[in-house]
Amino acid sequence: MGSATRPRVVILGGGFAGVYTALALEKALGERDDFDVVLVNRENYFVFQPMLPEVISGSIGLTDMVVPLRRLLRRSAVHVRDVETVDLEARVVSTSPGFRPHPHRVGYDHLVLGLGNVTDFRGLPGLPEHALPFKNLGDALRLRNHVIRAFEEASIENEDEALRRQLLTFVVAGGGFSGVEVAAELNDFVREVASSYRGIDPAEVRVVLVHSQERILPEMAEPLALFAQRLLQKRGVELRLRQRLQSATGTEAILAGGARIPTRTLVSTVPASPHPLLESLPLPKGRGGRLVTTPELRVEGAADVWAVGDCALATTPNGTPAPPTAQHAIRQAEVCAHNIVASIRGGGSRVFDFRGLGTMGSLGRHSAVAEVLGLRFSGFPAWWLWRTVYLMKMPGWGRRLKVASSWTLDLFLPPDLVELRLGGSKGLTREHYEPGEEVFREGDIGDSLYIVLSGEAEVVRGESILAHLGPGEVFGEMALIEHTTRSATVRCLSAMDVLRMPQQEFADLAAHLPDLRASVQKVMEGRRGARTIEPP
Amino acid sequence: MGSATRPRVVILGGGFAGVYTALALEKALGERDDFDVVLVNRENYFVFQPMLPEVISGSIGLTDMVVPLRRLLRRSAVHVRDVETVDLEARVVSTSPGFRPHPHRVGYDHLVLGLGNVTDFRGLPGLPEHALPFKNLGDALRLRNHVIRAFEEASIENEDEALRRQLLTFVVAGGGFSGVEVAAELNDFVREVASSYRGIDPAEVRVVLVHSQERILPEMAEPLALFAQRLLQKRGVELRLRQRLQSATGTEAILAGGARIPTRTLVSTVPASPHPLLESLPLPKGRGGRLVTTPELRVEGAADVWAVGDCALATTPNGTPAPPTAQHAIRQAEVCAHNIVASIRGGGSRVFDFRGLGTMGSLGRHSAVAEVLGLRFSGFPAWWLWRTVYLMKMPGWGRRLKVASSWTLDLFLPPDLVELRLGGSKGLTREHYEPGEEVFREGDIGDSLYIVLSGEAEVVRGESILAHLGPGEVFGEMALIEHTTRSATVRCLSAMDVLRMPQQEFADLAAHLPDLRASVQKVMEGRRGARTIEPP
Repeated sequence: MGSATRPRVVILGGGFAGVYTALALEKALGERDDFDVVLVNRENYFVFQPMLPEVISGSIGLTDMVVPLRRLLRRSAVHVRDVETVDLEARVVSTSPGFRPHPHRVGYDHLVLGLGNVTDFRGLPGLPEHALPFKNLGDALRLRNHVIRAFEEASIENEDEALRRQLLTFVVAGGGFSGVEVAAELNDFVREVASSYRGIDPAEVRVVLVHSQERILPEMAEPLALFAQRLLQKRGVELRLRQRLQSATGTEAILAGGARIPTRTLVSTVPASPHPLLESLPLPKGRGGRLVTTPELRVEGAADVWAVGDCALATTPNGTPAPPTAQHAIRQAEVCAHNIVASIRGGGSRVFDFRGLGTMGSLGRHSAVAEVLGLRFSGFPAWWLWRTVYLMKMPGWGRRLKVASSWTLDLFLPPDLVELRLGGSKGLTREHYEPGEEVFREGDIGDSLYIVLSGEAEVVRGESILAHLGPGEVFGEMALIEHTTRSATVRCLSAMDVLRMPQQEFADLAAHLPDLRASVQKVMEGRRGARTIEPP
Repeated sequence: MGSATRPRVVILGGGFAGVYTALALEKALGERDDFDVVLVNRENYFVFQPMLPEVISGSIGLTDMVVPLRRLLRRSAVHVRDVETVDLEARVVSTSPGFRPHPHRVGYDHLVLGLGNVTDFRGLPGLPEHALPFKNLGDALRLRNHVIRAFEEASIENEDEALRRQLLTFVVAGGGFSGVEVAAELNDFVREVASSYRGIDPAEVRVVLVHSQERILPEMAEPLALFAQRLLQKRGVELRLRQRLQSATGTEAILAGGARIPTRTLVSTVPASPHPLLESLPLPKGRGGRLVTTPELRVEGAADVWAVGDCALATTPNGTPAPPTAQHAIRQAEVCAHNIVASIRGGGSRVFDFRGLGTMGSLGRHSAVAEVLGLRFSGFPAWWLWRTVYLMKMPGWGRRLKVASSWTLDLFLPPDLVELRLGGSKGLTREHYEPGEEVFREGDIGDSLYIVLSGEAEVVRGESILAHLGPGEVFGEMALIEHTTRSATVRCLSAMDVLRMPQQEFADLAAHLPDLRASVQKVMEGRRGARTIEPP
């Protein structure tokens, strides 16, 4: 479908790989202006990933570490949409509908896949429902708001000690760069914030980092990783090494082996897998589902499809696959753009060959670890290096100014505690419970109805078991219809998954779908029968 | 229920009235420390309302104009909750549940009602569903994000001219201070942003201000209002005076008299009414539902209930009711706090007597109107006054620093275009349609199912009418179940209200509620029958 006159390059993904490919193509375009560039991304901004954890503490402004794509890309068309399908035969990308539900199709002559990877919770019970990923700006803001909310609630919760403990325990799973930076930043934030809340003893606050290997930061040399471990522990982070997160509920993180950590805040940066769209494409994939590329960064066997960044399995001439870092993505972007231009205009192609300059990881307030050109730094010098390098690497002077000014103000001002609540979880949600947990308790306010998807539970009042619940059964409707508090407790007998429907939604549906109302009434009459035969 | 030993003052609402009452009480508390103060507010921050419109353009940071309540109030307990009920007999306030659905009750000896007012769309068809209010930080951020989204979509919409026009038209209803400031700020923002989008001609962009009276800014002297009108018009705002917004749909603003403005962005700052909680309280109300108070700011007839700010109908000794402005709220707060302390400790009471210092309204970039101590200012001097006065009135040096630094950077940097998408409208939503409008069109992607709440529509394919739809009927399910595009168009015959259920929600419910599935299947079989008898 591509344009009849000018070739069109379509780039999917607006991370380092996609954006730097577009930038290199724009540069090559120059005066000749002989092809079109389209970049498709879910968000209208580029995230400067290394600074994302700073959003948690608000030490930089909430949007300082992102750059609107339109400010970066002056000659590309930017489509802010989800990619729904790619038709490799017809050479057409379809994107999700916008304000009107009509299909939107973009033809291409060259397709660049720079979709990155995603945190993939499939196969881990309860994680899709209850764990927070930490990939994009939305995740970071949600985490920040959730943490502030937990403090607000803990500060006025004087009766339920177990709830207080859950609210003031923060668990991070994954001890790679991303998990360590999140845990460090989160720890700094909660310890500083705790002192602002009357009625919260800072000693009540726990931050736990769970990591499956012997030591954290497997990407770095051992002495630096051990430095990081000591520092985090000194600042109050509990390390749980050689342990793996196995499942989660709304109130617990459960480790392999059965240890349970009561918490309402679970962040997991693992496991990562490539963008789900790639699964559906008939292209060759290697380790971890990444796309196998030629040294020129074409996807193996495809003439007009290219792959860059974290979703590509690009190997350097010495045979090692490039790690998923920004510096590698940027070098790949340059090679890929060069080769696309060569195949449009004719000319020699280049191969990807880059060994990396080093690695850096922030450890929060005034500390970091870094390995640069074979030299190792830790503590304040590494932190200074980290800030300087990343500030200069941020695209655009405007952002650099904003970040520098935020960092300066942050030296004087206490951390910001504003909780932004935008929309909420209306609609149906899924929840996961483990054996022995309660869905609700006698005397609670009735705010939802539940549908059992899998697992078993019992309905209990005092000592008596009133009923058993299994898949397909509806419960919790009585308090909604009769506007009373819960007349019994529902306790899980096995791991259980439920769909939860909020009160307002149930009221709307029951009022307007007569069959739904009838079916709920049938259930209720059965229950009422059960109630009358219960022991007094 | 109040405490047995120390009296407890509970303040409902964290706007100017509530917060300044708490501040005055904290000051009076001093060394004696002989009573408790509890403030209940929906959000954990105080909004410095005069600067709220600046969020639209992002000329100050997204949270610069709000102050966390805990930073302001050092000796009060802050409960971040919705107020659900007040029991005046038992002297107990119940708040909404937090992380666990158990009830939360706070007893009081003195109750201060500072709940402000709300934008009340009841009785205006389609406004609750489709108009954006502009009261709090969430509203301002939603409007900003919505506007950026509209630009993103317009920039890639090349086929549907009507949709493009809707996306690039922005309508504000209400020409008081609030509406004028929103329209001015919005106009500056969209005109500057338009130039960043390839494929959008700035001349396509429309901003319309609808106001029911002869002139805007009824709060100010006529010459200033006329200055504001001329300035707004010069900058591209279309004024629709002596016109009233009557109803709205997802694609149109409809004025009394029938004029229709195609738009996807409708902000309405009118009409205002007191907080809905007040309706349920058996307390004397006057004009506009506001609480009638004594000169001491007790609610008429109640010994232990006080009212301050926009929800109070407080009259000054010369008999005129105080206007709903921040300066009046702050003076009332001081009087109210004094009198509460007097009634706890004994001592003389004060009466409210304040005539106001003047009024100011921002008109956007470098212009404003102001009336201070009988003097009138307009244009740049008024703008300079506006900025200086409000900057100094912001509570806390931290915020002042942040705002001043944002204002400085704003002189050099282009407006920020980051669209924050946090959560979305999952779950059931309501929509309003007017006669002749289409709910969906043949060939559209099927993304929702609809339930008719009121009104009539017809199902059309080409020239043939396939069916009529009325209240209680379900439509749109076919494309969802068969994963195809819409096979027909649904066009409204009268004003129609529907419940819309997104695809994912329908799939979840249909999979797990057998009766729902059965009832939809019944409808579908009926439709299939209808399809076979249609003319070919």
